[in-house]
Amino acid sequence: MSGLSASFKTVGVLGGMGPDATIDFLSEVVSLTKAGCDQDHIPMLVDNNTKVPNRQAAILADGDDPGPIIGQMGRRLEAAGADFLVMPCNSAHAFLGPLAELTTIPLISIIEVTADACNDCSSVGILATDGCLEFGGFQQALRDRGIAPVVPDAPDVAGLMRLITRIKAGDKGPEVQRLMRVLAGTLVERGAEAIIAGCTEIPLVLSEGELPVPVISSTRALARATVAAAVAESR
Amino acid sequence: MSGLSASFKTVGVLGGMGPDATIDFLSEVVSLTKAGCDQDHIPMLVDNNTKVPNRQAAILADGDDPGPIIGQMGRRLEAAGADFLVMPCNSAHAFLGPLAELTTIPLISIIEVTADACNDCSSVGILATDGCLEFGGFQQALRDRGIAPVVPDAPDVAGLMRLITRIKAGDKGPEVQRLMRVLAGTLVERGAEAIIAGCTEIPLVLSEGELPVPVISSTRALARATVAAAVAESR
Repeated sequence: MSGLSASFKTVGVLGGMGPDATIDFLSEVVSLTKAGCDQDHIPMLVDNNTKVPNRQAAILADGDDPGPIIGQMGRRLEAAGADFLVMPCNSAHAFLGPLAELTTIPLISIIEVTADACNDCSSVGILATDGCLEFGGFQQALRDRGIAPVVPDAPDVAGLMRLITRIKAGDKGPEVQRLMRVLAGTLVERGAEAIIAGCTEIPLVLSEGELPVPVISSTRALARATVAAAVAESR
Repeated sequence: MSGLSASFKTVGVLGGMGPDATIDFLSEVVSLTKAGCDQDHIPMLVDNNTKVPNRQAAILADGDDPGPIIGQMGRRLEAAGADFLVMPCNSAHAFLGPLAELTTIPLISIIEVTADACNDCSSVGILATDGCLEFGGFQQALRDRGIAPVVPDAPDVAGLMRLITRIKAGDKGPEVQRLMRVLAGTLVERGAEAIIAGCTEIPLVLSEGELPVPVISSTRALARATVAAAVAESR
């Protein structure tokens, strides 16, 4: 591996949405990398920017637009040497316009690579924020692949938002884990053959193996795609 | 907190030495930050640079000098907006010359803040890499504070290096944890009133509370100092 490492592509990470989810993503990338020493790992430039306006508030129409600052972050990461970008926040993918204008390097979409991981299913449940469900990125990406999306009803979305707020404040305890399993179970009862953990906070409390159907972590799907791209492009 | 968050200083992290230790440091910063939402967290720019030459090989005289690339990383982080720098790698603190020349922002030294945390002791054990012990930064910082350093003998240093190599390759299992406790215990028998976990990999397998004396994680000491500086300077 050592001979290859010098030619890995550098990953630019649009992070801080939230910081815990960014760290979870970085951990996944490092643990998915077959490395024997520091120099065998994938170089990453990370902007853990905590000043990005709330994505849910922006989608639901009463908040500041996160798009311009995301675009500036991307431009700064490109200038600093990133070869491609990733953004471990699903909802933020509703605001890609300025990023596309301000950068010339590609973004690997967490939405698309997560949907790619559902290819064997005909019906897939989506656990995501109210804003992300309203944005509809996952629903569209699934339909594009001939897969029927199953989304929580309004009371369950409200319950999910309360759980995500607790996770962002640091509560990943047994009660939060149990309530998350209940929300996922409801989607399984409605026919979902897999559950997308489609907010980067959800995999922090819902592991694969805790439900009768696969849990597809969007964080892990993005980490896998990131490692593949960093290695593949360097060969 | 929300009103303050907009004025937090931005932390520049000279990272990738190794990637796991960088992530451990970022996690400590996030968990030490009292935050209710993403926007309450401390902004960090992270260069997870995996091309920094091996610090041990450089100190022990047969490897490339990591100093110039560390200096370039610092300059790039300053240009990108960092207000101060931190480097979660103890041994790398032997190579600060180019960084001081190429940057105008301060570096919070992991060596100095770790030694600050030992102030109540008269004798402190140091678990660190062979290169870091040869560099002597911890020994000097302790002596500057009137504290006697207790360092492992040569065979124990060799054993410690084998453990660190295993941790860097991803092995944080029970055997590695047990062997690390044995090495620390030897220093306690020789009179150490506390143990510095002075390589950023060591806290990954040696938690505070596992020994009859305090374990002072250099990673955690740096995280505490980072949070204090980011908040204090913004007021």
